[in-house]
Order: sequence, then C-alpha cells, then structure tokens
Amino acid sequence: MSSTTPTTTDIDRARLPELLPLCRKLAAQFAPRAAAYDREGRFPTEDFGEMRAAGLMGILVPQSHGGTGANYADYTRAIEALAIGNGATALAFNMHNVVVGALAELDMEDVPGRRAQSLAACRNWIYDEALAGKVFASASSEPEAGPRLTQIKTKYERVDGGFILEGTKSFVSMAGHADYYLIAARSEQMFGDVPGISYFIVERDNPDVTIREVWDTLGMRATCSNTLILNRCFVPTERLFLLEGVALYKSTREPHWLIGGFNGVYLGIAVAAFEFLTSYLQRQAGNPNSPRRIDDPLVQHRVGELAVALESTRNVVYDAAERVVRDRGSLATNIAIHRAKYLVNELGPRLSSEAISLCGGSTIAKRFPLERYYRDSRCGGLMPARSDDCLTYIGRAVLGIDVTNPLTSYW
Amino acid sequence: MSSTTPTTTDIDRARLPELLPLCRKLAAQFAPRAAAYDREGRFPTEDFGEMRAAGLMGILVPQSHGGTGANYADYTRAIEALAIGNGATALAFNMHNVVVGALAELDMEDVPGRRAQSLAACRNWIYDEALAGKVFASASSEPEAGPRLTQIKTKYERVDGGFILEGTKSFVSMAGHADYYLIAARSEQMFGDVPGISYFIVERDNPDVTIREVWDTLGMRATCSNTLILNRCFVPTERLFLLEGVALYKSTREPHWLIGGFNGVYLGIAVAAFEFLTSYLQRQAGNPNSPRRIDDPLVQHRVGELAVALESTRNVVYDAAERVVRDRGSLATNIAIHRAKYLVNELGPRLSSEAISLCGGSTIAKRFPLERYYRDSRCGGLMPARSDDCLTYIGRAVLGIDVTNPLTSYW
Amino acid sequence: MSSTTPTTTDIDRARLPELLPLCRKLAAQFAPRAAAYDREGRFPTEDFGEMRAAGLMGILVPQSHGGTGANYADYTRAIEALAIGNGATALAFNMHNVVVGALAELDMEDVPGRRAQSLAACRNWIYDEALAGKVFASASSEPEAGPRLTQIKTKYERVDGGFILEGTKSFVSMAGHADYYLIAARSEQMFGDVPGISYFIVERDNPDVTIREVWDTLGMRATCSNTLILNRCFVPTERLFLLEGVALYKSTREPHWLIGGFNGVYLGIAVAAFEFLTSYLQRQAGNPNSPRRIDDPLVQHRVGELAVALESTRNVVYDAAERVVRDRGSLATNIAIHRAKYLVNELGPRLSSEAISLCGGSTIAKRFPLERYYRDSRCGGLMPARSDDCLTYIGRAVLGIDVTNPLTSYW
Amino acid sequence: MSSTTPTTTDIDRARLPELLPLCRKLAAQFAPRAAAYDREGRFPTEDFGEMRAAGLMGILVPQSHGGTGANYADYTRAIEALAIGNGATALAFNMHNVVVGALAELDMEDVPGRRAQSLAACRNWIYDEALAGKVFASASSEPEAGPRLTQIKTKYERVDGGFILEGTKSFVSMAGHADYYLIAARSEQMFGDVPGISYFIVERDNPDVTIREVWDTLGMRATCSNTLILNRCFVPTERLFLLEGVALYKSTREPHWLIGGFNGVYLGIAVAAFEFLTSYLQRQAGNPNSPRRIDDPLVQHRVGELAVALESTRNVVYDAAERVVRDRGSLATNIAIHRAKYLVNELGPRLSSEAISLCGGSTIAKRFPLERYYRDSRCGGLMPARSDDCLTYIGRAVLGIDVTNPLTSYW
Repeated sequence: MSSTTPTTTDIDRARLPELLPLCRKLAAQFAPRAAAYDREGRFPTEDFGEMRAAGLMGILVPQSHGGTGANYADYTRAIEALAIGNGATALAFNMHNVVVGALAELDMEDVPGRRAQSLAACRNWIYDEALAGKVFASASSEPEAGPRLTQIKTKYERVDGGFILEGTKSFVSMAGHADYYLIAARSEQMFGDVPGISYFIVERDNPDVTIREVWDTLGMRATCSNTLILNRCFVPTERLFLLEGVALYKSTREPHWLIGGFNGVYLGIAVAAFEFLTSYLQRQAGNPNSPRRIDDPLVQHRVGELAVALESTRNVVYDAAERVVRDRGSLATNIAIHRAKYLVNELGPRLSSEAISLCGGSTIAKRFPLERYYRDSRCGGLMPARSDDCLTYIGRAVLGIDVTNPLTSYW
Repeated sequence: MSSTTPTTTDIDRARLPELLPLCRKLAAQFAPRAAAYDREGRFPTEDFGEMRAAGLMGILVPQSHGGTGANYADYTRAIEALAIGNGATALAFNMHNVVVGALAELDMEDVPGRRAQSLAACRNWIYDEALAGKVFASASSEPEAGPRLTQIKTKYERVDGGFILEGTKSFVSMAGHADYYLIAARSEQMFGDVPGISYFIVERDNPDVTIREVWDTLGMRATCSNTLILNRCFVPTERLFLLEGVALYKSTREPHWLIGGFNGVYLGIAVAAFEFLTSYLQRQAGNPNSPRRIDDPLVQHRVGELAVALESTRNVVYDAAERVVRDRGSLATNIAIHRAKYLVNELGPRLSSEAISLCGGSTIAKRFPLERYYRDSRCGGLMPARSDDCLTYIGRAVLGIDVTNPLTSYW
Repeated sequence: MSSTTPTTTDIDRARLPELLPLCRKLAAQFAPRAAAYDREGRFPTEDFGEMRAAGLMGILVPQSHGGTGANYADYTRAIEALAIGNGATALAFNMHNVVVGALAELDMEDVPGRRAQSLAACRNWIYDEALAGKVFASASSEPEAGPRLTQIKTKYERVDGGFILEGTKSFVSMAGHADYYLIAARSEQMFGDVPGISYFIVERDNPDVTIREVWDTLGMRATCSNTLILNRCFVPTERLFLLEGVALYKSTREPHWLIGGFNGVYLGIAVAAFEFLTSYLQRQAGNPNSPRRIDDPLVQHRVGELAVALESTRNVVYDAAERVVRDRGSLATNIAIHRAKYLVNELGPRLSSEAISLCGGSTIAKRFPLERYYRDSRCGGLMPARSDDCLTYIGRAVLGIDVTNPLTSYW
Repeated sequence: MSSTTPTTTDIDRARLPELLPLCRKLAAQFAPRAAAYDREGRFPTEDFGEMRAAGLMGILVPQSHGGTGANYADYTRAIEALAIGNGATALAFNMHNVVVGALAELDMEDVPGRRAQSLAACRNWIYDEALAGKVFASASSEPEAGPRLTQIKTKYERVDGGFILEGTKSFVSMAGHADYYLIAARSEQMFGDVPGISYFIVERDNPDVTIREVWDTLGMRATCSNTLILNRCFVPTERLFLLEGVALYKSTREPHWLIGGFNGVYLGIAVAAFEFLTSYLQRQAGNPNSPRRIDDPLVQHRVGELAVALESTRNVVYDAAERVVRDRGSLATNIAIHRAKYLVNELGPRLSSEAISLCGGSTIAKRFPLERYYRDSRCGGLMPARSDDCLTYIGRAVLGIDVTNPLTSYW
C-alpha cells in the first residue's frame, strides 16, 4: 500500500497530522479483504467496523462537538487514502459524509430564529449519532429520474407531527446496512419557481421501508446499492433535514458534497491502480534487449504519461478542495469542483485500462486487484455530475451564462 | 441482434452468400446464453455444438476437400458476426481456425518432395478431423514468455517414431474441451540464426497432458484459457505440424493468422456494444428540454464519434483482410494487419466505456450485456500484437527498417 | 515527391492508368514554387497553366464528350496527388471540379422534357469551356451566413431574358482569376418548404462584378479566396445552372461534391507532411544511445501512430469515394462521406503538429515546407462539413433521425 | 485584454501586489503592436523599451539589491501575464531572466572562499546591469546539437586573463538586440565523468561576434532567434558565469530555469487564445435553432473542454512554480516542472487549433490574433524539455530510475 513514487508524498501535508496515517493504516487492512467482498457483492462489514472503532464516523463533526473536525480539503485526502484500500468501502463511507458534511458547513446565523433552533437540534442529534458510530446513507436517485432531483417522484405530505413519504429510491448505497437513510422527496408546493424538494431522515428499522436486493453490477459491487421502497412511511417533524425545500438550491449553489465527494474516492482507486502498475513493472523481467521492463523506453514513456494524468488530476482535485475551504459556493469554486469531477471521471477508466495493457494478460486474473480497479473506476463517471454535465456547466459558466438555476441545470 | 444502422449493412457483401446469415443466426442463439457462461466461467458447449452441427469446424477447409472454403476476408466477416453473439465463443473458435487456416494457405509447390508428402498427409488428416467436427486449440503462450515465441521454454527432442515434449503452456483457450492441441516447442537446434521452434499436435486424452484450471479473469471468462502441462509427452512423427523449425518464420512473414484473427472477434464485440448503445438510447426518455434522449445534441454528437471510430476501424479491418487474400505476406499487407490490430485493440475498451457513459448507471447491471462487453473488450489488446508492438512494427516498416527478422521482432 | 513508404503504393490502382502519374508529375513541378506563392499570397498561375496544358480542366468531363472521364474515386486520388505538391493549387482546382462534377453525374432521364433540353445545353457549354481550359469557381459562402446555404442573402429576381443578382460572396477561391463564377442566390419563392436557392454562372469580366482583395490568412494563402460583390448583375437565362431551386436538395441529398471534394485535398497535404517527416528523420543523426534517429524506439512508435492515422483515414476516404461511384446518394454513402470528412479534418492539424514535434525546431523555418502544411491543414476543418457537423450528421443518421431535411441540417 | 472568465481571476493572488497589474498593463500595450512585429519578424523594441522603463529587467534581482525580488512563482505569473499581450516579447524577456534567475537563487554559503568572492562580484555586476536596464540573452543551442548541452561543440580554452571561445550558436533569441550573451561552451577537461561545460558572458559589441540573420519561421517571429558566431572571441576572467563546469549539473539538478521558464510564456499564449475564443463567441450570432452561438450545446461543451484543459494546466504550472519556491531541486519539484512543461507543450497547439474550429473560417485572417497564437503556440514543444523528454523523465523517476545523471538525460 505504501507509495513508491515521490510524487505522492505530498498527501502528507494535511492539517490534521494523524488523520492520513490512520486512513492509510485502515486502507492497508481493507485491501486483502476487498476481493472477497467484491466477488460476493457483500457489504464490507469489517471495514466499517474498523472505521467505526477508529472514530471515523465523526470525521466531519466539528472538534467543538467532539469530532475530528476535518474540513473539505482534509476530507478529500482522507477519503482518497481509504479508497486505495477498497473503493467500494470509501464510496459507501462518502455517502455517510455527504449527510454530515452539509450540516457541518451550515452557517446558523443565516437561518431565522425558530427554524435555527430545530435545525440545531437536528444537527446535534446527527452529530451525536455519528460520534456514536451510527452510519447515514443517502437516498436521492430514482429508477426513472436517475440522479436528477427535479425529476424525482417520491412525494411527501405533511401530517400531524411529521410527514408521510411514498416512493422508490434506487442506487441506495448501504441499503439494509446503514442505520439511517437521507431521503429526498418532493411536495406539491413550489419554492419560488422551483419544485419544493426536501430531505428527511428515516431509520433502517422503520417498518414501512423495504429493501429490494437488485445490486449485481460490473463494479462497486460491495456498496450494496439496492432499491429502497417507502410505503407511506411516517417521519417525525424533527427528522426533517436542513430546511424544507432547500435541496435544489443546495445542489446548485454548493455542489461540492453532492458531486465533489466522489472526487477523492475515484482518485484513490486511480492511485491504487497506478501503484499496482509501477510495483508490478518493477518486478517484471523484460526481453533480451532490455532485461528489466522498466528499462524499456516505451514503458517509461507510457508510465510517464499516466503519471502526468494522475498527478495533474490530483493537483486539480486538491485545488478544488482547497477552494471549497477558502471560498465555498463561489462560481470559481464550483467550476473547480466540476473540473475536478470531469478529470476524475475520465482518469479512472483510462488509467486502469492502460495499466492492464502495460502489465499484460496475467493481470486480468482475479488474484490481482487490477481488474477490480478497471471495473470500479468505470462507475465514477456515472455518478453526478457526469462528464458531459461537467463540461456543459463549465462551458456555460465561462461564457457568462447563469448556472445557478436548478431548472436549467443537470439536476 | 439485427443492426439498426445503415452503416453495417455492407457486411453482406461476402463471397459466400450463405455464410454470414448462418453466423448471424448462430450469434442470435449464442446471445441469451452468454451471461451464464460468463458468470460461471463455463465453456460454451452448446454454442460449439451448434457450430459443429452447422459444419463450421470446416469453415476454412477448401471446397475441393469438402469444406466451406472461406478465404481470410470471408472468415473475418464470419467471426465478427459470431462475436456479436458471444465474444468468448468466437475467440475460442478462432483458435481452432488459426490451426486450419495456416494449413489451407500452404502452397505445396514450395515444399520439397518427401516433406511435401508428409505435410499433405498431415493436412488431409486435419481437414478430415475438422470436417468431422473435431476442434483444435492453440497452445503457444507460456507463463514467463507470454506470447513471445523466441522466449518459450517448452522443449522437444526427437525419439524413435516421434518426439518427446516437456513444458507448461498458459492461456490455452478451450483447454480440456478441444479435441487436439497445437503445441509450440523448441529444439536445441538453430534454424539459421533463429531458434528452431516447431508445432506439434497432441490429443486431449494423451495421458501425459494435464490441465490446471486457473482461468478466473476479468473477461473472456468462457474461453477456459487454462494452463496445460506436458510431462514428457510423446507425439508421433506424423503429428508434426507444417515443417520443423518454421514457427518463427511464419509468425513474422505471415502474421495474419497469429495476430489478425483477433481482429474480427474484437470488432464483433465492439459492434455488439454499439448496437446495444443505439437501441438502448432509442428507447430512453430524455429530460424536459429534449424528451427523447436521441434528440439531445450531445448524445447525437457522441454517438457520431463512436460510429466513426467503429466504422473506420471496420474499413481498416476489411481492407487488411482483403489484402491478405490479394497479396498475402507482402509488407503492405502485414502493415495493414498490424494497423487493423492496433485500431481494434484501442476501439473496444474506449467504445464500451463511452457506451456505459452514454447509457448511464443502470446499464452496469449484469442483466444487460454491456458490462460484459466492457470486460471482454479489454482483453483484445493483451493478445499479440499489443498496441505498442503494432505501432513499433509499422513505424519501423515505414522508416525502412527490416521487420521480418524474428529476433528483433516482438515475438 | 516519390513516396518512400510501402503503404502508399496502392494509390496506383486507379481505373485510369495515366491519370495518377500525370498528377504526380505535376505535383512535383508545383512543389518548389509553392513557398513563394504562399508567402506572397499570389495565385498559382504557373500551376494552373500546366494543369490546363495537360487537359486537367476536363478531368471530370465524360470521355464521350472528349474529357478524361474520371469518376469520383479516380478524382479523389487525383486531387490527393496534386495536393501533395501544393495544397492551395489543389483546393482551387477542386472548386472548378465541384461545378463540373455535379453536372457530370446528372441523370438526364430524371429531368422532364423542356428543362432537360436547356440543362443539356448548359452542360454541353460548360464541358466545352472546361475542355478549352476555362476555369470555373464556386461562390457560395457569405460574410454572415458562412457556408450555410439556408442563410445566404444574395438575391436573384427574374427579368426579361434572365436574372438580376445582388449580394456579396466571401471566401471565393480564385476570385479574379477564374473565368467563371458559380453563384448561389435565393429567390423570394419557396420550393416546397425550403427556400428556393439556385446557382448561376457569371463571367469574370461582367462589369457588375467587383473583387475586393481581402485574403490574407494563416494558410491556403495562394487560393486568393477574396470577396466578390454582385451589383445588380445580369445573368442570361441560359446561365442558370442545373434547375431552379435545386441547391439545397443537392447539398443534402448528394453532399459528396460540396463537402467530400475537400477530402482528397487535405489528405494530400497530410501525405506530404508524412513524407517530409519520414524522409527528414531518415537523414537525421540521433544521440549517442541511438545514432540514427529512426532507431529511437519512441520515434518509431510515434511514426507508427501517425502512419496508422494517415492510412486509416486514407482507407476511409477511398471507401467513401468508391461508395459514391457504387451507390451515390444513399444514406450509407453520405455517412461515409461525412466520416471521411471528419477524419480528414482532424488528421491534418494533428499530423503536421506532431511532425513538427518529431522533426524539431529547425523545421519551423520557412525554407522547409512543413510549417506550410501545418498552416494549410488547419483550414480543412473550416470548410463544410465541419467536424461537429459531421458527427451530428452521423449520430443522427445511426440513431434513425432524418438527415435529408435541409432546414434541420447544417446548411 | 481583461479576462471575462471567473476562473482566471486567481492570478491576482501574487505576493507582490503591484507586479501583476503592471504586467497586464504592459501586455495591453503590447497587444496592438504584436501583429506588425510578427509579420515583419522585427524585434519588439517598443515592448522592451516599456519593460525597461518599468524596471522589469530587474524583476528577479533581490529587493536587498534594489530589484523587484520576484520569486519563481511570482515570476511565472508575471511572464504569463506579459505573454497574453505578445508571446514573442515574453519569450525573449524570459531568456534574460534565465540568466538572472539562476544567479538569484545561488546559495553563496555552499561555495568555497575565493570562488565565492569572484562569483559575488560577477553576480553584483549582472544585478547592476539588469537594474540599469541592460538585457541578457542566452545562447546554448547549436546547429547540430540542438539544445543538448552534452553535444555542443563550441569550445573554450584558458588564456592569460580570460578565455577564448570558438563556435556557432543557433536559436539565439534577441541576437543583435540584447546587450550581453550568455554562451555555453565546453573545455577539453572533464568534471567528474561529465563534460566540463561552462557559461560565459560576451558583450554585444565584441568584435569577434557575428550575427547571421536566418530567423524566418512559422511562429515566434519577433524573437529574432538568429545564429551567432564566435570567432576566437576573448572573454575576460570575470565574465565566467557561475562556476566552471557547472552547466550540466545545473540543468539536471535544477531544471526549472532552463525548461520551466517557458511554462508561463506558453500558458499566457493559451490564455490569450482562450480569451479570444470566449469573447468572439459571445459576439457571434448563431443559427435559427440557437440564435446566440453561446447557446449551442455543442459550443458550450467544447468550450468547457478547453476551459478544463487550460485551467488544469494552469493548476499544474502554478503548483510546480510553488514547489520551486518551497522545495527547489527536489525530485518531486523537478517532476512537477516536467509535468507542467508537458501539459503546456500539448495545450497550446490543441487549444488554438480547436479555437479556430469553434470560431470559424473568418478568424484565420491576419486581422485577428488567433492565427498567430496557433503559430506561436506550436513552438513551445520544440524548446526543452520536449514532450517525449518530459514523459521519459517522469516515467523513469516514478519507476525509481536515477534521473540526475546528465549523461543519460535528454541534455
């Protein structure tokens, strides 16, 4: 797991000096188990147990509340480090942090009186649960809408003491394994001229929630991203997440959690593929002309090409993450997040495919992890924002077209 | 299975009017069974049964000997059509034809007297076996040498009435399922300044042959390309294939069977992925701005890009195949074969990866064939000639450097 | 000028055995003069003089009428050969053939009685003029519309004995040098639901035609593609070209002349760049590790990559050209023409840019032709159909969307 | 000249708050003059006059010595800003700074006694001359060696009171215009196992220096990079630059001046091309379907793609520059410098070529600057390190191969 390349040592410059070594240690524990979880499509219970024991469920909970207090840049490096060991574990873990992270950034001063109180109560409860090792999952996508929030059909209506939710969610990572689900649902009501879409927290054991086990896929097999059915499911008032109707504004104004959280995960898988590549080549004999494969000029050249792709993507991912910390929600920051997402989307399939070419036929065997990287990395571009959405977003922004309107966005 | 695109109709222009319809019919039968064979890594016994029943084992046996008499161009189109149904089946079948095809092209007038007689006898026997539905497999690669013939370690020595073979072969498609194996082995003797490497035919049931079942891979899982061990295995004189010491000359002078046979197979997988893509998109609803996905300008553009990649690769593959028929073994023909191999190598992973991007997250589910195309197509570039070998070959050739010397080749 | 690469010898397989050798001989005469024409932006009068003397103005005039009778495939190879010597000369010459070629393909049986007579008269007159060495130029583009026919503003109206034309044409290659201009103009009338756009032939010396010399550009400097102003210019009835209102139908139904004629020209420039590259590298010394540059593995590899790009584009260009001969106007043929146009558009800038990289800094000097190829080749993608138009056309076609409607086309 | 894109505003975060506004102001003055200098291949005397007047010749002279004291990161942004106005001016100016910059970084404590004294004297003299507005030029390349220092043939020998230099230098930017030339020359002596190559400063008016005006090229025409001939030219002892024999060590241990100085220049040209592109598109009308060109989805997408390429290259260039400040000469820093050089090399030709595609045929006219960007940007990859050299360097480094040995380097 240890990197042999001088170019990746800078990962150490984190603000929280113990966080990255911890994540790397965990990743090294995940790695030997990853193949079995993948083959069986089984949830990585042991990985989550170790993360829970290490206090990682509170990674984004502020230090003032007893958590690790990682900011977006710290978190990006941490999730990258975890993904080196098992991308599916890191991806599932990211869904937990999407929930906590959005809360932790909340500036309570912007929220008017009474709402602030209930918001603070919800937040404190979530912080406490996370610190107690509870896991949250995010359930936004739907069978027909995909990840497009404006198209979702899951409805909610107000009733005494809470809400009733009805609908079907797909691609719910950790479905059946997380303790809570964050559900996006729409009301009849409009907020301004956009549909009123809100988030609610539902417990795993709510009797009106059913899981349908359909997750049998090319890659990311251990996330168990199954289908979740809400059958007139009651949610008490205090389980409203953030404020009512805020979902679409959030996704377009501050897209870093919804789309940028994936950047670290898929960067980590690419790092794993690259580290496999270089260490494999270093052990391989060449042909009579260049007895070591690493002395073959074409191999050096191709490895150099992939190193450039990897490290420049890393530069962009880190730059975007640091912009979030410095200047959250600005146009330049949001462009940077989409730029990073695009590059990460494209990097993984290309790098892992080229790595297979360079390593040769033996390395498509399941006893090596490379073929899993090839499969897992193909999934990154399917999560929002897709590559085309990223480019359209950036193109519009630099041409001076408004990109903050949810109705003309890719959501 | 039927193509909806006007650009693929030209596949019909074959010299043998019944061959392509037959192959397409078979492919349509293979397709629904392919997922199970893939999942279980099981040999496609039913597919081979149907091909055998249809007389396809004799596809390359001359009409004068009772076979179909397909030439290289006919064959390329036929194997492409079969691969649309199941790439692994087509790949395995190709290995059979590598054996028969090299024989069928043999110009007996070039071979001196006594040798011509034994050669003719061997050839007729192979023709008869093929017509009787027997399957030949090719065993060249080795654990350390990979596909590099000059590096193989399997040895043969002359004994009374035949030869003794000793060594280990890897990536032997249909190991345990084919009726015969074509084994490449080296003698102590040099032929000119190149190692004397010869081919021998060994029966499946030879007691000195052991199969080790190790094939558990990313893709092409149904080829059962296991390891084959020859433990001082006796082969009678009449099972010497072609002439002694001819292997390396053959691979560099007329590489179309050894490397170009793969072109049709992997082109066919790309065709299948493209046909899936267009028919899937045609059924998909879009977003409010363009209610059909196919009306989205970015979708049209991207599909156009992939169509160009596919059809131009097809142009090159067919051009190369027709050159083999017209001008076998010439430098221009061999360049064309390598050009086609390079483009096919690169096409598959790219096209299937982009198709997944375009179709979206649902299509990585195992109930669709697209994820299998993504995995299978990644294997094409691992078979000789690899992309870098193709480019080096072509670059040298156009710069006026001799590419016929086996010792400086990629073999 | 003679090719040193075995891959380009197939150019000889033309139907007219004397045509290609003639074109190559002329190209060899053009080459040493090209730099001066380029620098001064001067029309290649000598080149045209030699082509005229060789009878090339009648290359597309049927043999039955005394011409060379080249078909579209012959012509594509011929123009490619000429462009190797001077791309600007070949491009200008192509504009002449766009006029003659459309006529030569005309199937008179489709045209009803009286019109057929006047059409035949016009055609015979053009044939005679071409055979007499007269040069036709094509004037379609306009300052605002660019090449989009549906957007042109040049108007015509019927008057006694003919038509009055009024408007401004831009990018008129050979403006001031050709003997005649083919002018596209619109009437008030609609033909069906598309604007009625017709073509007229105007003489160079018509007093109501003015040339404005504005052509001072990056590349293709010797085409003198100046602006032409029609100031209520009278054209007699017999100078109506083809039939009234036919322009848009022609451009969408049979786009090979309007867009595919460029394929040979820009392919030829790419061939010239590639031939320069290989012959330059063959003369260059390398470094101590590989004393000849051509022995450097990276050089071989890169040259191989460019050879593949060049030759596969050539395969596609020839395939498209042969389809025009075999199956003119079919959807598959039109897709093939756009496929070829796209590949040629992309090939030139890339190949010439890479050739400069490989040859090194000395070769950007104006005493070498390579820098001109880099500039000239950049112009190919600007002529219709642009790369994006090609991909959209192909994408729509393979997705089953109608591409024959001029109003939704890129015209 | 002002950027319309939010993504480029971060250029303002420089340590020296007045430097970038100054450079941008100068660039705005350069821009309208650039076309004439380019056309005539004339040295940009006015640009240099303005830079001199603004004190920019001392940009790298430490503040303690009265200069601006820009560090490598400041300088990179400054030269980028200048290049937006005229790339040739910025490139020539960079050659001056290559001389001063190497000195300014010198850690005198590493140099033993007596040498330190003469080194300090030389440095102070150069600082004073720079502050007085004198311009230094760098003369390393040679007709046969190109930029490979190990291959140069210019010789020096010790004589009383100094050295005698003999040889020919090519690509000497500002030859005939700079006040001094920095000449690389070799002695008979070896330093360790590498050739002893040293630098000397020669005055413009030295009677044994002759300029041959040969610079007539595709791009960067105003740098006047002519040939310089040293005819037994005497140089006094005190004009030895740095220490004897240090050249090769410097170029491999701390390559940022020799190769990384170009990064800002060519990044600036790419910025200029991109800004032209977006502002041109914003003014253009579209077709009936999308009346503004910027509303065309394909345009947005393509612009997004180029924005990603530009901004991610910028991220990498700035990251590399900051590493030089933080950790000069480390392997990770040198890799970063090569990574940036590679991306900048590739960016320019691609971005300017695509910008021409998007803007359309009108913009190849010489009245627009875009065609000059296309020509100038093509020159970046010809200056060391070339793209292939960058990739080989990086590939070797990450595979654990020593890249500090000058004899196996690209120098």
